[in-house]
Amino acid sequence: MRPLLALVLAGGMPLSVALPAAAIAADSAPRAPGAREQAPLFAAEMERAARNVEASIRAGIQVPVPRDPGGGFTHEKHKQNYRIIFEAGQLYRLTGDVRYRDHARDLLKAYADLFPGLGPHPAASNQVPGRLFWQSLNDSVFLVNAVQGYAQIRASLPAADRDHIDNGLIRPMARFLSDGSPQVINRIHNHATWAAAGVGLSGYLLNDRDLVDKALLGLDKSGKAGFLRQLDLLFSPDGYYAEGPYYQRYALQPFVVFAAAIAAHDPQRKIFDYRDGILLKAVRTTIDLTHDGYFIPLNDAIREKSLQTEELYHAVAIAYAATQDPAFLSIAKWQGRTVLTPEGETVAADLAAGKAQPWPFASRALSDGPDGQSGALILLRGDAGFDGPLLVAKNGVQGMGHGHFDRLNWLYYDETGPVVTDYGAARFLNVEAKAGGRYLPENDSWAKATVAHNMLVVDEQDQFGGDWKKGEEHAAQQIAAGLDAPLQYSIAAIDTAYPGVGLRRALILLKVEGLAQPLTLDILRATSDAAHRYDLPLHFSGHIIDSDVEFSRNLAERSVLGTANGYQHLWVDGKGQKADGARLTWMKGRRFYSYHMRPPAGTNFILAESGANDPDFNLRREPVLIQRADGQKNASFVSLLEPHGDYDASTEAVVASSSRLRAFDHRRLDAADLVKISLANGESFVVAVADDASPAARHNVMLEGRRLEWTGPVARIKLPRETRK
Amino acid sequence: MRPLLALVLAGGMPLSVALPAAAIAADSAPRAPGAREQAPLFAAEMERAARNVEASIRAGIQVPVPRDPGGGFTHEKHKQNYRIIFEAGQLYRLTGDVRYRDHARDLLKAYADLFPGLGPHPAASNQVPGRLFWQSLNDSVFLVNAVQGYAQIRASLPAADRDHIDNGLIRPMARFLSDGSPQVINRIHNHATWAAAGVGLSGYLLNDRDLVDKALLGLDKSGKAGFLRQLDLLFSPDGYYAEGPYYQRYALQPFVVFAAAIAAHDPQRKIFDYRDGILLKAVRTTIDLTHDGYFIPLNDAIREKSLQTEELYHAVAIAYAATQDPAFLSIAKWQGRTVLTPEGETVAADLAAGKAQPWPFASRALSDGPDGQSGALILLRGDAGFDGPLLVAKNGVQGMGHGHFDRLNWLYYDETGPVVTDYGAARFLNVEAKAGGRYLPENDSWAKATVAHNMLVVDEQDQFGGDWKKGEEHAAQQIAAGLDAPLQYSIAAIDTAYPGVGLRRALILLKVEGLAQPLTLDILRATSDAAHRYDLPLHFSGHIIDSDVEFSRNLAERSVLGTANGYQHLWVDGKGQKADGARLTWMKGRRFYSYHMRPPAGTNFILAESGANDPDFNLRREPVLIQRADGQKNASFVSLLEPHGDYDASTEAVVASSSRLRAFDHRRLDAADLVKISLANGESFVVAVADDASPAARHNVMLEGRRLEWTGPVARIKLPRETRK
Repeated sequence: MRPLLALVLAGGMPLSVALPAAAIAADSAPRAPGAREQAPLFAAEMERAARNVEASIRAGIQVPVPRDPGGGFTHEKHKQNYRIIFEAGQLYRLTGDVRYRDHARDLLKAYADLFPGLGPHPAASNQVPGRLFWQSLNDSVFLVNAVQGYAQIRASLPAADRDHIDNGLIRPMARFLSDGSPQVINRIHNHATWAAAGVGLSGYLLNDRDLVDKALLGLDKSGKAGFLRQLDLLFSPDGYYAEGPYYQRYALQPFVVFAAAIAAHDPQRKIFDYRDGILLKAVRTTIDLTHDGYFIPLNDAIREKSLQTEELYHAVAIAYAATQDPAFLSIAKWQGRTVLTPEGETVAADLAAGKAQPWPFASRALSDGPDGQSGALILLRGDAGFDGPLLVAKNGVQGMGHGHFDRLNWLYYDETGPVVTDYGAARFLNVEAKAGGRYLPENDSWAKATVAHNMLVVDEQDQFGGDWKKGEEHAAQQIAAGLDAPLQYSIAAIDTAYPGVGLRRALILLKVEGLAQPLTLDILRATSDAAHRYDLPLHFSGHIIDSDVEFSRNLAERSVLGTANGYQHLWVDGKGQKADGARLTWMKGRRFYSYHMRPPAGTNFILAESGANDPDFNLRREPVLIQRADGQKNASFVSLLEPHGDYDASTEAVVASSSRLRAFDHRRLDAADLVKISLANGESFVVAVADDASPAARHNVMLEGRRLEWTGPVARIKLPRETRK
Repeated sequence: MRPLLALVLAGGMPLSVALPAAAIAADSAPRAPGAREQAPLFAAEMERAARNVEASIRAGIQVPVPRDPGGGFTHEKHKQNYRIIFEAGQLYRLTGDVRYRDHARDLLKAYADLFPGLGPHPAASNQVPGRLFWQSLNDSVFLVNAVQGYAQIRASLPAADRDHIDNGLIRPMARFLSDGSPQVINRIHNHATWAAAGVGLSGYLLNDRDLVDKALLGLDKSGKAGFLRQLDLLFSPDGYYAEGPYYQRYALQPFVVFAAAIAAHDPQRKIFDYRDGILLKAVRTTIDLTHDGYFIPLNDAIREKSLQTEELYHAVAIAYAATQDPAFLSIAKWQGRTVLTPEGETVAADLAAGKAQPWPFASRALSDGPDGQSGALILLRGDAGFDGPLLVAKNGVQGMGHGHFDRLNWLYYDETGPVVTDYGAARFLNVEAKAGGRYLPENDSWAKATVAHNMLVVDEQDQFGGDWKKGEEHAAQQIAAGLDAPLQYSIAAIDTAYPGVGLRRALILLKVEGLAQPLTLDILRATSDAAHRYDLPLHFSGHIIDSDVEFSRNLAERSVLGTANGYQHLWVDGKGQKADGARLTWMKGRRFYSYHMRPPAGTNFILAESGANDPDFNLRREPVLIQRADGQKNASFVSLLEPHGDYDASTEAVVASSSRLRAFDHRRLDAADLVKISLANGESFVVAVADDASPAARHNVMLEGRRLEWTGPVARIKLPRETRK
């Protein structure tokens, strides 16, 4: 690891390269204008920032009294202002142009005039209110940004201005977010990380050790809370964040920004080595939690969120500075953006020098929970590509208040995007007309519900009775995982989601000779002493082509499927039965998908769509297929997702628009599931999944007069090629 | 115009540059392998073709007996084979490799064995049956391609092979498509153009003047049918094709390919100068009929169709060869493809040489009808960009059997894609499970219906009683058009669509100072002596944000809006009334759209969605807002589409998510419509539209004590700035 480029905030020293003290001193004067030719990526950032700051200079200082919720005028104005303070400070460092410094100073002084007189925000809702914003979280983000900008100009200001800003804004805001908000900063939660970062950066800047220690160790400095404790508890040993990918992304910025400052100011803490390098693991894992650049929308998540976000610009720059791993450069290239800091400068320069290497996307079993013992998030990738096949299995923890009731849920992506989908959150971020941009009522009533996921619903209830605090007490169990093609798998179980019902699911990604796309086999088994209604939903993206089920259709009158737990939001399009399994085929982009089902006998198939009981048009309308088995105790749902064919609108050539599957049978024999799959190309094989998942266990069953033997939890056993009937 | 690169087919001469005879002779031997370094675009085409042909060589000759409909095995195989014949022929010309020649020869010989014994295709449906395909159209396409490939190898074949192919395939197929199918080739229709091209190319190749003349002049050689008559009647003087953009694209290939051959073989015809250069006008207009590269889906149209199609590769290459206009090169660049002909070679070389210039997208009034007297298609573009604001007004003819009942319909596009939309066709092209890939029943019952368009429906009936032949008898009248920003407009009328009802619509695209996006003002007036139900639908793309109408919502039970004429396909989400006009706001991509309505007093607002009474899931589900005024004789519907704001998921910055409109009032005074618009930025103006549309007419009205004067049909009159209330 080469010397770290990092935030140095002490004593008003400009942001700088953390080299020996002499180097810092030499670098402490702002650079002369045009002193350095910048790489295109960084030059573009400087231009963008200069445009923003110049526009702000022209518009004059606007620091309105806080009034509006997210998306409203004062909300957006204060957000804009902290960005301007950050950018103007960096531009002053880079160009030495005092107009930038003076604009940042004037904004900071205006806030120093305003802030001390503020009480709780008038638009406060169900979150802890801030002073400048409706929730204190945004105040923390303000402080993290403002301090970084202020740090670049502070040394060049007269003492009176420094005092005014230090004591009118920075210190009171840091006090408000620490001593003034124990219910925030003492939590183990991303809001607390932002608060700790704001408070800690302020402490370093003001040389206020008390603030720094409270940020690092909690208000009582015991280490039971604070930044280090958050590092201990919020990430699993694999760098997976308890709340899921969306909040992992969000949480990352204060983690890496504060860590860079700690590394610079308290190098003896070796913060990047802390907990076996957890911070850099977290950055890498964050990038791994994307498909085609977009974050997998588990738990509360906005689907539009990609690697193109401020948090990831910071994380990539700081991680590259810390590791020099050229794979980070390819991410920066995809982002097309970086940050205005010295770390961003290096990223841009090395990218321009052609040093980028592809990001090594691979299958991963990300342990969940602080000790890695609370299940796992499984990512099975069909190839190393940015947008190739990806099967996700969510077998971990609840994920706190933003968690969904979706343990053992699965998703599937490929080059067409999301195929087996997750609704994400019901929220229009910062769109004022949609509940001020906050989470919508349908987030609780639909998005979090078990039926809104691809997981078995027992008796139309949510997992854990819909109580996330109860959900926090229980993790899923990751029984086995196989990450290597051509037979990748996850086996997981949970017996706490529903009283008296054991649930076990094997998800298997199969590469098959002669098929361009892998198959996904899903073997889900419920075990219970009592009879239940079992509903297994599949939320898919695409247009229905056809089915071998004769649905009784609701053609001219459409009713809802149920009354609660998300069922009230489902319009029923049709119901049908079919004795010996069923198939539904849909089309998305250029590809066809056939979903083959082997549920318990007597199962009903229900086609439905989200959007019922949605008075304010808050929901997207998306299709779902539900396999419903009534009065069942022990039941197996065995399903196969088969991508096939190609639709080319340019050439009008369509190939393989119908399934290539010739046989698909499930048997339970001798504590094992045996699934026979035969394809039109003559390939025929059995996938065997043993209940005993120990790697060394040897298994042996007779199937249709043929002895099948294998070792370990999952095997694919080839059968002789069949000739076409 | 420099000497034309064109198809020379006579006497088995290889496809070549139409230079003086000596040059043709010199060029008649196939090029030696690697004789020429090709530009990247063309080299890629050669590689692609070589891959296809090599795969076909490996697979062997497969010429199955015709059996399947569109999308089925034999259908796709015969399509693949004509492409292989074309490609193998071109590759032989380019490389001299006899393996390519021999493969094309063997395919052609297999067809020569098969073809004479074939009767009408067994999967024939409601179209004229072909021999190789379910409709004879595809047979024509086969012949056009096969002849072009055959032409490259014919001279190098032994006489016996030539005779076999000439007399077993080419001549019989040309006879089948001419004398054998008078009901096709004698029509004025794109199917006839394909037939004429196939027959004519065959005639040139076989030196059969009879075939050529029948292709050019119709079976009786009178000129009342045939290619030249099609050029007279199928395009308007502006090169707009009667059936609309989708079929214009489709029709283009036989037009340009056959024209290039005519230019080479019958240069005295000066075919590219014919009818004031109608062919090149048609190519240019085809390109103008796109937004972001996609064809505007008027009439029966598949929305996925873009400039990236075989037809346009040919058209662009041939048009560039004919004109050397470097704007065609930027289209080729967007396409990323070209054709394997000498024309394609030139496009690729000049593109590589950096000669491309942007396509000059501009507003256009495309006259409709062969004499340009049957109304117009109006394209109002907000800027010269590929994907900028575009207002489309369809004020022309029916468009024959593929036409929709949508006279005076309008559409709107911008950087987010289609905003005010057209359903296009109900069809899954070549997807066998969807009615063999043909038009679906819902194409008639929904896609063509007036209510499926953004045009007034009278008494829930289709225009022309849903009879397209009746629709053919009447065109809309284009009363006026203004193509110049900042005040672009179309005024059109039709009094034949509904008995006893006159319809007149002014659509105005307004650039307003301080607004990033133009406004669209729609003034629609119905005039009748009898009382009617007037429904004005707006089909929009996006997610509903909010409305100032309090809709009575169908939250848990959804019914359909009507029983016929498309109404049976609409689910009702809610109905509401509001006395003084209404607003609906939706969001698409990064942008918000507010639609402001000033309909007659007592109007009901209905929110609905397509997809009811759709037993086979053939319809997409898309939202529509309907303004319903009952018991009206004369009625005005005045509406304003206001794009506004920005949603940035990366930075979470949202600006202007609510409308900027402060006032919007309509008055009818002194044979004029006066619409006052005031915006939050203080801009305030009146748009005045006079009934008398003559350019020189002077108008003069008193509005709210202020005298307004203007000349011509439409004016924008600025009012003094208003201060914020």
